[in-house]
Amino acid sequence: MSKQELPVIDQDTAAEGCRPGLLSAPLDEDQAAVLAKVFKALGDPVRLRLLSMIASRAGGEVCVCDLTPAFDLSQPTISHHLKLLREAGLIASERRGTWVYYRLLPEMTDRLAGILTRPAALVVPEPAA
Amino acid sequence: MSKQELPVIDQDTAAEGCRPGLLSAPLDEDQAAVLAKVFKALGDPVRLRLLSMIASRAGGEVCVCDLTPAFDLSQPTISHHLKLLREAGLIASERRGTWVYYRLLPEMTDRLAGILTRPAALVVPEPAA
Repeated sequence: MSKQELPVIDQDTAAEGCRPGLLSAPLDEDQAAVLAKVFKALGDPVRLRLLSMIASRAGGEVCVCDLTPAFDLSQPTISHHLKLLREAGLIASERRGTWVYYRLLPEMTDRLAGILTRPAALVVPEPAA
Repeated sequence: MSKQELPVIDQDTAAEGCRPGLLSAPLDEDQAAVLAKVFKALGDPVRLRLLSMIASRAGGEVCVCDLTPAFDLSQPTISHHLKLLREAGLIASERRGTWVYYRLLPEMTDRLAGILTRPAALVVPEPAA
């Protein structure tokens, strides 16, 4: 079987509208495995704080040297958490000189927001006052 | 200090609009701890599939007896995963007779979708063609 015949979960395709739809139809095992990895990366308070510091930074980029002082943790520990966020597709990094700089990959958070949004048919309208 | 003076993270308040805003401002430690617990509950493929089966069921309710056959796992294992989803505020359960029935708590998924949605100021409009 050639490589092209294999079904592949394409994160770009998912981000562009062909979403698995967590709330609208049962996920299959492959979809669940991919998504669970991303949610697991978010399932830690230090990683959530790191992500929010990176995402909310004006200019869109943060030096690791500005992240570490906010935590009572060693730089290797912070770097490990950042690596898990990067492997989940939530952030990107770039080394320039001594330091590594991080930025949000909003396609992934957009995708998660999309799959956690109820299909319109499931949203019950509020009764008129 | 009276109990009323203590700051408390109120999930109802958060769901109603006073959201911590993962992408708009750095989370504090308490906000991150609460959110991490919910994301951790989602960070497992079996729990994601269970949640999607419950959320997408017409009628809004699923008997545990209809969930277990979809998995190659024992009923106690499935029940443990359901307990973690329930403790995270993602689903509710009700025992009726022999079986337990589960339903989605959409306030929590709405809340997560909200905090993962980029503030309007951070969304770059697509250039006109």
